Amino acid sequence: MSETSITDLPIWKKLLQQAEIINSKKNHLRSLLQEENRLNDFSGTGAGIFYDYSHQRIDGQTMELLLELAETRKVMDTFYLMTTGKKVNKTENRAALHTAARSFSDRPVMVEHENVMTEITRVRDEIKAFSEKVISGKICGSSGKTFKHVVVIGIGGSYLGTEFAAQALKAFADKNIKLHFLANVDVHNFGWIADEIDPETTMWIVISKSYTTAETTANTKMAYTFMAEKGLNPEKHFVTVTAKGSPGDDPSNPVLQSFHMFNFIGGRYSVTSAVGGVPLSLYLGYDRFEELLQGAEEMDIHATKSHAESNLPLIAALISIWNNNFLNYQAQAIIPYAAPLCKLAPHVQQLYMESNGKSVSTEGDDLNFNTGVIIFGEPGTNAQHSFFQLAHQGRPFPIDFIGVINPQYEQYQSISNGVTNHQELWANLISQPKALAEGMDNEDRARFFSGNRPSSTILLNDLSPKNIGRLLSFYEAKTVYEAFIWGINPFDQFGVELGKKLASGVRQEMAEKNTNKDHAFDEADPIAKFYLNALFSGKID
Amino acid sequence: MSETSITDLPIWKKLLQQAEIINSKKNHLRSLLQEENRLNDFSGTGAGIFYDYSHQRIDGQTMELLLELAETRKVMDTFYLMTTGKKVNKTENRAALHTAARSFSDRPVMVEHENVMTEITRVRDEIKAFSEKVISGKICGSSGKTFKHVVVIGIGGSYLGTEFAAQALKAFADKNIKLHFLANVDVHNFGWIADEIDPETTMWIVISKSYTTAETTANTKMAYTFMAEKGLNPEKHFVTVTAKGSPGDDPSNPVLQSFHMFNFIGGRYSVTSAVGGVPLSLYLGYDRFEELLQGAEEMDIHATKSHAESNLPLIAALISIWNNNFLNYQAQAIIPYAAPLCKLAPHVQQLYMESNGKSVSTEGDDLNFNTGVIIFGEPGTNAQHSFFQLAHQGRPFPIDFIGVINPQYEQYQSISNGVTNHQELWANLISQPKALAEGMDNEDRARFFSGNRPSSTILLNDLSPKNIGRLLSFYEAKTVYEAFIWGINPFDQFGVELGKKLASGVRQEMAEKNTNKDHAFDEADPIAKFYLNALFSGKID
Repeated sequence: MSETSITDLPIWKKLLQQAEIINSKKNHLRSLLQEENRLNDFSGTGAGIFYDYSHQRIDGQTMELLLELAETRKVMDTFYLMTTGKKVNKTENRAALHTAARSFSDRPVMVEHENVMTEITRVRDEIKAFSEKVISGKICGSSGKTFKHVVVIGIGGSYLGTEFAAQALKAFADKNIKLHFLANVDVHNFGWIADEIDPETTMWIVISKSYTTAETTANTKMAYTFMAEKGLNPEKHFVTVTAKGSPGDDPSNPVLQSFHMFNFIGGRYSVTSAVGGVPLSLYLGYDRFEELLQGAEEMDIHATKSHAESNLPLIAALISIWNNNFLNYQAQAIIPYAAPLCKLAPHVQQLYMESNGKSVSTEGDDLNFNTGVIIFGEPGTNAQHSFFQLAHQGRPFPIDFIGVINPQYEQYQSISNGVTNHQELWANLISQPKALAEGMDNEDRARFFSGNRPSSTILLNDLSPKNIGRLLSFYEAKTVYEAFIWGINPFDQFGVELGKKLASGVRQEMAEKNTNKDHAFDEADPIAKFYLNALFSGKID
Repeated sequence: MSETSITDLPIWKKLLQQAEIINSKKNHLRSLLQEENRLNDFSGTGAGIFYDYSHQRIDGQTMELLLELAETRKVMDTFYLMTTGKKVNKTENRAALHTAARSFSDRPVMVEHENVMTEITRVRDEIKAFSEKVISGKICGSSGKTFKHVVVIGIGGSYLGTEFAAQALKAFADKNIKLHFLANVDVHNFGWIADEIDPETTMWIVISKSYTTAETTANTKMAYTFMAEKGLNPEKHFVTVTAKGSPGDDPSNPVLQSFHMFNFIGGRYSVTSAVGGVPLSLYLGYDRFEELLQGAEEMDIHATKSHAESNLPLIAALISIWNNNFLNYQAQAIIPYAAPLCKLAPHVQQLYMESNGKSVSTEGDDLNFNTGVIIFGEPGTNAQHSFFQLAHQGRPFPIDFIGVINPQYEQYQSISNGVTNHQELWANLISQPKALAEGMDNEDRARFFSGNRPSSTILLNDLSPKNIGRLLSFYEAKTVYEAFIWGINPFDQFGVELGKKLASGVRQEMAEKNTNKDHAFDEADPIAKFYLNALFSGKID
């Protein structure tokens, strides 16, 4: 037991008292929204993003206390030290330098007496040169044809962030290259991709830091076999993004090109490294990837240098903790009113839940409070027609709404009910936070809305690569700030190890059965044995 | 106040006491799983689906009490009455007859002295004839070309279930027709589809019961304009699925064909009506749609006629209530180890959260307990590499795992680590429930797993149309049973009305501005005014 629990701090107790005040009827959101200057007092702009938290269940006093919590926990100091290369990932004795991946400053970032910017810049230059040669056709497949399909083989952090950015920027994909993701070991995923690609013009990018992830290894083998069976030379169709010296970076297994990733950037924070860089530069062109990096860097600077009271990711983190630990909401929805952001919720689901789904402090102590909540979401207005019934009249949960002022498509302007489709979308975006917050009385209780349901609204000017970079960095910084306030390590993920270990035992049982038909699974537990028999007999018994 | 609250019932109190017993350390899942015959006692097969609830935090006594709760609430009677046409949707004075949509029995189903099976059968025959003519090219577009793209315009219940079934059965889509969904009013969705289709060979199916849904109206207008601008006759490219006599079923607005939907089948229960029938029959062929109906009917019969103790959807509903109201879990994940089921979670998210996100009883009384939980999910193993850190070491939530014994693709059999990809997937499917339930001790608390995290596992023999129908009906029946136990109406959705109403006011402000540039939004509240100005000025102020 190495430090006082956060719940023993005077500021934590003051916040618990403040929650009682906010829970009182007179502080219903309907009343709070009547405050003069409500929007002005509870909103801000940083790195081009507007963040409105006026519909959160807070008042001035709440924000003061939350900022005092941040101050007490010295989180801005820790955040700054993280960007300078301090080993904030204590359990793995590593730095956490996703911010360095998009730094364009001359400031060196030292890890173990080496300036990591040298390697980062080198990899960036390699990505630029490689992607330009592929797009121009100077690098092509084994039969001499220009690449038209890129399949990313990678799972979890090796694909979710890239998928988010690619989907968000689909309108900019003008390089005549289609991007596919082969994440799951599920053979259906492979089958679907095999049906869609033309092997001769397909490049496979294998992304794995260790190059030993079971799913990625299996899919790589499948793809390699598939290409060889088509009479193509796989060496000319495979690219790897992996740690220096891993089995994927071994000259005895030649590939088209190998790009390095670093142990100081974890999967879920890796979009701005080669993990996102190689596929996104092929899909969008390197320049757009660099714009995305610049946007992320802008938000990093905002998150590092802005005063706490105007630091948007920090404020968002504090509100998230307020909703979770003091108002007891257990989930958080992300609802972008912009279809290109449809993969933001799955990305943040990983980023946040894997980072902050912890029960132990950085110092190794069991926690006596809850950390991360469940993140989910779908784009609006789809979400309204799906699960908003529950949001309005069932179990409440806080929501991040996201709006985009200028859509990527300007050519479709038909008018229905007096407005364009984009305006219709905004009519809903404007109305939902208000409806959730204010509610509506009705004697018919089936038509009664209790209101008092909190939300924030984030606005972007447009869906440019720069704004996608800013949004990406905003959620990364928010996630990290939350962890630092709680005093947990957002950069490890030991929670996935036990399942892997058990799977390894089951896999051995299967491998044994594959070579010996009489193997009877007698050493497996009875339930595992039942499932193994179902699989191998091909039917439910 | 018309009836005793469920929480005052003796059985409810007994269950609260039982929860205390199960919460004691000696009833950790690690111990419960040691019971002899655990799997046999807590699993069952019905309508071809295997349901294993051995990893739930229950014992024999718990199940007895839960079954007593079901008995007390007479839910099997209500369920049966629902299938006979009783107006169980009391707030809207309607029957709820999704089960009739897939009935092939001769039994009449009477609503207001009419046998609705006559109309249902007629529509089914129309779908069969129409889809066969389109697939064979007898019905084609205005320029004489066979249809190759079908775009479903519809939102919420008019698309989520169909999307689930279409994705699940993609491997059977051999009719040379691509299926697209235009749900959101977001212009990006329209833009993406416009980029993918060939207008000459495109059919648009507009699905809306009232034919007045704002999003669908706007998208229909957009599509109509788009087709006309391409020099095509929209009348030959549009199909409607709508209520008899709606504006979409008006001879003065001629379309290729109009199919009827009925007020006794709500959107989220409508996959087996013309809502799913028309697009799925075009995509897969009518015969496969009929197999899906047969599978759903089998599960309906199981859900209606099986004794409570072997009634799988009822047991699943009771366990859901146990986890929610007695063990206090607030969310539920659906994790299929089968990529074709990737749209099951979004479908059930709507089906369940819109049905059961309620705070008022069927009798109009405010409830003093929580109803529906938050549903979310992604396919495994992707989910393991995304948010399972939180599942194992953060805030616990129950999970439905789903496994498929025989995949749709048999031709990819490469071996990695001694197993095929499908076996690798199963090694994980078998291991996760065990790891979550049993946990693992460790002095290093960052590597400690507390376990006791509940799950169920559902097995399907394969992903045939029949099994997709069974699975669809399983989740429908589970949802309805839960509602009937609580005594709420799962068929209305008044919770979406307030947002619509407020949006209508904002839309008017926008329409006014579109015709009068000087309109200053002075009647909007200050926050709405800020957003309106941001949208119309094209930038964040």
